[in-house]
Amino acid sequence: MAGNSIGKLFTVTTFGESHGVALGAIVDGCPPGLAITEADLQIDLDRRRPGTSRYTTARREPDQVKILSGVFEGKTTGTSIGLLIENTDQRSKDYSAISELFRPGHADYTYHHKYGNRDYRGGGRSSARETAMRVAAGAIAKKYLAQQCGVIVRACVNQLGPVKAEQYDWSQVEQNPFFFPDGNKLESLDDYMRELKKSGDSVGAKVRVEALGLPVGLGEPVFDRLDAEIAHTLMGINAAKAVSIGDGFEVVTQKGSEHRDEMSPQGFASNHAGGILGGLSSGQPLVAEVAFKPTSSIMVPGQSINTQGESVEMVTRGRHDPCVGIRAVPIVEAMVAITLMDHLMRHKAQCGDVQVATPVLPMQQG
Amino acid sequence: MAGNSIGKLFTVTTFGESHGVALGAIVDGCPPGLAITEADLQIDLDRRRPGTSRYTTARREPDQVKILSGVFEGKTTGTSIGLLIENTDQRSKDYSAISELFRPGHADYTYHHKYGNRDYRGGGRSSARETAMRVAAGAIAKKYLAQQCGVIVRACVNQLGPVKAEQYDWSQVEQNPFFFPDGNKLESLDDYMRELKKSGDSVGAKVRVEALGLPVGLGEPVFDRLDAEIAHTLMGINAAKAVSIGDGFEVVTQKGSEHRDEMSPQGFASNHAGGILGGLSSGQPLVAEVAFKPTSSIMVPGQSINTQGESVEMVTRGRHDPCVGIRAVPIVEAMVAITLMDHLMRHKAQCGDVQVATPVLPMQQG
Amino acid sequence: MAGNSIGKLFTVTTFGESHGVALGAIVDGCPPGLAITEADLQIDLDRRRPGTSRYTTARREPDQVKILSGVFEGKTTGTSIGLLIENTDQRSKDYSAISELFRPGHADYTYHHKYGNRDYRGGGRSSARETAMRVAAGAIAKKYLAQQCGVIVRACVNQLGPVKAEQYDWSQVEQNPFFFPDGNKLESLDDYMRELKKSGDSVGAKVRVEALGLPVGLGEPVFDRLDAEIAHTLMGINAAKAVSIGDGFEVVTQKGSEHRDEMSPQGFASNHAGGILGGLSSGQPLVAEVAFKPTSSIMVPGQSINTQGESVEMVTRGRHDPCVGIRAVPIVEAMVAITLMDHLMRHKAQCGDVQVATPVLPMQQG
Amino acid sequence: MAGNSIGKLFTVTTFGESHGVALGAIVDGCPPGLAITEADLQIDLDRRRPGTSRYTTARREPDQVKILSGVFEGKTTGTSIGLLIENTDQRSKDYSAISELFRPGHADYTYHHKYGNRDYRGGGRSSARETAMRVAAGAIAKKYLAQQCGVIVRACVNQLGPVKAEQYDWSQVEQNPFFFPDGNKLESLDDYMRELKKSGDSVGAKVRVEALGLPVGLGEPVFDRLDAEIAHTLMGINAAKAVSIGDGFEVVTQKGSEHRDEMSPQGFASNHAGGILGGLSSGQPLVAEVAFKPTSSIMVPGQSINTQGESVEMVTRGRHDPCVGIRAVPIVEAMVAITLMDHLMRHKAQCGDVQVATPVLPMQQG
Repeated sequence: MAGNSIGKLFTVTTFGESHGVALGAIVDGCPPGLAITEADLQIDLDRRRPGTSRYTTARREPDQVKILSGVFEGKTTGTSIGLLIENTDQRSKDYSAISELFRPGHADYTYHHKYGNRDYRGGGRSSARETAMRVAAGAIAKKYLAQQCGVIVRACVNQLGPVKAEQYDWSQVEQNPFFFPDGNKLESLDDYMRELKKSGDSVGAKVRVEALGLPVGLGEPVFDRLDAEIAHTLMGINAAKAVSIGDGFEVVTQKGSEHRDEMSPQGFASNHAGGILGGLSSGQPLVAEVAFKPTSSIMVPGQSINTQGESVEMVTRGRHDPCVGIRAVPIVEAMVAITLMDHLMRHKAQCGDVQVATPVLPMQQG
Repeated sequence: MAGNSIGKLFTVTTFGESHGVALGAIVDGCPPGLAITEADLQIDLDRRRPGTSRYTTARREPDQVKILSGVFEGKTTGTSIGLLIENTDQRSKDYSAISELFRPGHADYTYHHKYGNRDYRGGGRSSARETAMRVAAGAIAKKYLAQQCGVIVRACVNQLGPVKAEQYDWSQVEQNPFFFPDGNKLESLDDYMRELKKSGDSVGAKVRVEALGLPVGLGEPVFDRLDAEIAHTLMGINAAKAVSIGDGFEVVTQKGSEHRDEMSPQGFASNHAGGILGGLSSGQPLVAEVAFKPTSSIMVPGQSINTQGESVEMVTRGRHDPCVGIRAVPIVEAMVAITLMDHLMRHKAQCGDVQVATPVLPMQQG
Repeated sequence: MAGNSIGKLFTVTTFGESHGVALGAIVDGCPPGLAITEADLQIDLDRRRPGTSRYTTARREPDQVKILSGVFEGKTTGTSIGLLIENTDQRSKDYSAISELFRPGHADYTYHHKYGNRDYRGGGRSSARETAMRVAAGAIAKKYLAQQCGVIVRACVNQLGPVKAEQYDWSQVEQNPFFFPDGNKLESLDDYMRELKKSGDSVGAKVRVEALGLPVGLGEPVFDRLDAEIAHTLMGINAAKAVSIGDGFEVVTQKGSEHRDEMSPQGFASNHAGGILGGLSSGQPLVAEVAFKPTSSIMVPGQSINTQGESVEMVTRGRHDPCVGIRAVPIVEAMVAITLMDHLMRHKAQCGDVQVATPVLPMQQG
Repeated sequence: MAGNSIGKLFTVTTFGESHGVALGAIVDGCPPGLAITEADLQIDLDRRRPGTSRYTTARREPDQVKILSGVFEGKTTGTSIGLLIENTDQRSKDYSAISELFRPGHADYTYHHKYGNRDYRGGGRSSARETAMRVAAGAIAKKYLAQQCGVIVRACVNQLGPVKAEQYDWSQVEQNPFFFPDGNKLESLDDYMRELKKSGDSVGAKVRVEALGLPVGLGEPVFDRLDAEIAHTLMGINAAKAVSIGDGFEVVTQKGSEHRDEMSPQGFASNHAGGILGGLSSGQPLVAEVAFKPTSSIMVPGQSINTQGESVEMVTRGRHDPCVGIRAVPIVEAMVAITLMDHLMRHKAQCGDVQVATPVLPMQQG
């Protein structure tokens, strides 16, 4: 597990560069007997796919995933699952001009100093293109969680630059190119993004993710707390800069009497905790948010240096997302699903089957 | 590594309950030849120790750490280091009354459902008392980083409830019981905390941590990015609810042209990234913040249930911190140091010695 | 997991030097609810304890183990279990003479070159004394396996130098100081060992271990096969030089028609495989053997060098076992139990509860 | 790391079934800057390839490996390396007849009970075909070890059924289809194998592996000793039943004065230890042996049962190796190289660069 793997028991390892031959992943540890097809994986890949709206990169990739192993007659066998997506629309010549330059705010500089030898084409391994494999692997976890445990993982963009969602209508989320839950804001978003694209600049976004139907007790005390692992899995997504659980940074000004979620025989009275107590799932909805920075690949000129340390002016051409947070939605779902799946298995190993909810517990938000 | 371990190469594993016989840790993987004594560890333990001011728990523990192995004639031998702190001031009878109750906002409920059998005395394993061992282990990492690499890790409380630091005078931090960097706010803090304690309530806090002098390139691409691991290590501290790197959630409204840190032959012009680009350290100061919730063990009565699911009114007696964020400062430093140490070793394994900074690189904030 | 840990889900991490303050271990991942006391652990510690017969080292250690955490009101809580044994009979002055010398066949030479700084007293970390903690941790696994799954792990010395066991009477094993299963050979063993001790030399031994009552399917395909992990766990014991499963090296001259274990509705007709097929347990008895070399700490003079590379003649004084294979018996049992426990938990995580044997399957040896 | 991964820092994860679409692997953690091409990997793949002589399976696979990522302009980039081999000569119809049967001595029975759902075609994941990816991944480790450290890993069959090598002429090994080091025995081998094939039976073999030029100090004390990890890596190869280091099982009858390798300023006087002392490499040649059982897929009829538990007579048709030990030679080399590479990196992480041999040390066998 040298950095390209996540999960202790449900382990996903990926490979692939933005402009290489192919992207791939191995999903190891999946329970046997789960019905899974390439079409199941394609659903989320299509949600993440570039080139689907004018607000994402113009690169056109079918992102057609192939299952190469681990599934027999439509069901998982319990052995490692090989996944592959061939790259088809690499235009590497776009990038040759920047092989000696460091784009400000980009991994160019740090990869160069760490490894010496880097694939600069389209960001190579540091490209968000790598996340396609996370989405494919996450789709397996999502299906298991939904079918075997009734756990639903869902995400949306709840803020894009200055535009905030003021209501959550989850049925809206898949109906617009922004994965936005507030239908009243779609026009503002459209306007905002059109202007942004025209300016050649980019903007940040915030993604909210929820997991519903979790059993009580997923997670480990101390270092591998469920919140710590959720933070790890989400902050590991390209461009993520902050992660919060439940009330997040608002807890700084809260009193204990205000923050604690009181309980009654009817359930929890609130969910400030975001569904995690003492590092373990409480059975309430798990709620987390992630901040995504604006991509640094923009057409606004900026000061930088080259590999010789000389001053240069940079303008990133090529095809880029003006707001990487949008396409992050299926990635966020995938990562949370992978982490929950891993903890579900860890729980089973040590404590046996997950706690069946009594009529009262796990409790729902009042 | 079943939850009580952190670090892949510099691995810390802890044990111990709040009211058990002792707390302990094993630090495995420490390089040989590091001069280390119990006194070195005691410095940070004393900073974390309960009972040092009227604003922390009244429990009095000397927290005297013993090194049981792995150090010979004052230097580490490269073998596993055993650490032990005996508990001396357990008053378990304080807790017998709550053995059948779930304190709202506390791990009682989730531990009960996960494990069935829990040590309810003082929160058992879920008590922040466990973090004493993290501090002891972290002190080893801090010393190695400082002596061998010139890396300094430091933290402070930069917000406590409504009181925010408006200036950073690091020399102040160790001079007041709040680890607060703004001397002008000490009187307000004192007033605030006196009122809070009187009310029997608790409050949240925000801790800022910095690592100075890092080489370029620590971290791994993809899942084990340095920011993801910092998020994991910090969110794994009791009561943490949010973690940010650099500008954190503010990136949501930033433009790319605003967020990216431009570079010149003289260095980086800014540090919005918080010292991490593409998941790797950039050589700039690493900057992160953590939100700590108000402790749920308060004397304000609250609604809850017992293990039979019946309604009860809870008042937590016993000895508790009104603001757990304060004593979190040395814990935050310890966790960041452990994670940096681990990544330093991972870097050495794959890429050899760390990048020596040239006069220009790594660059400093302009 | 920097070398002093074993097990992925049932994880044992140890510390301690031969002449340090104490030995310790953390057992992480143990299922909650297992009744366990210090006395349970002491049984196997006493079997391994030095100074119990004239055929083991004269060092006298009570090896009294303390459980410091993870057990509440007599039952495991699912949190990490801290174990401690204080050293009482260290005579470090015995060893000062050899601090600059490399004993032939000993870890002195390799530790010196790897770490630079080594605790030479009694072999420090390389001493077999470290295995006391393995035995203590293994006793927890043994109890779980026996009580929850009906799995019995047992070992014996089946060859000591030239003296081979010709019959297996397991009731004999605990009745003699050699853990030998053949009562007819006890007199020969006694004679042989008396002569050996007189000569100041040492001798090798072979240990056989069996696990009875295993469910079908423990183990993982490919790298973490059960046989591979058994080989790892056994070869990791001090002085082990070879490990075999089932017919072991005899398979080299066997034909396929001879080696394969035929099956009928009544069960397997033989057990050449030693209870493992395709890396997974078959439900037959798991059978393995380990060769232990003669200790290199002997009183017969030998040629060596010192840390300056100069020629020296070595005679090891101090207190040593003439046949380390004897006291290895409880260690072998402990290591096999730890590994089986780990695989039982891995199996539960991925495949759910272990296969309940039908009247016919898993089959017994005919 | 759910069973299909090996190595902590140089990590190899594989997927693929015997009759699936393709086999693949991800090599994670390889140092950057290593010159590597598909042709480098192909050399060992061709040595392992089926269908190259009449003494191996008749299945014809070109086993053409593709590098999909992690190599840029001919050199590794430090990111994960994706490898792929497409299956071309699957004849799955050969196997449909045995989908409901358990071949004696085969993984059919245990996979069926562990997973419920198994790919029975050609043994699926339990097929030795999976080892092609180990050989490809191992070739990367071999190249690094040879080029960067001067470490050579080499193996040969030193016993095939009753025919033993009596001399070691390593130049012979690549000149005959048996990887046999004794040219005088080639005629006997030829005769023996011709008869064996005629009989429809199979036979076991023993493989010897050596690593030359190792630095002193690779390995970890206690559980991850180099010998323990070599045992793990070798026993994890299909059909392996025993592993020995140095004198192996012969140590059982040796005296300490006989076994210990004496040292002089000119070096070690012998190598009974097989190059490992205290779990660490001594700088002498690492010597290990592995026993491979005769394959259980033979044409001699045998008694078995079907998935209903009913009695059946089995004859395995299809294409199989009469002696799987032969093609194991490049696999053994690959596995040892992967494990040494991993320990080299672990050593660098903790202790810095490997010990440079002085003129005298590490010493050579006298």
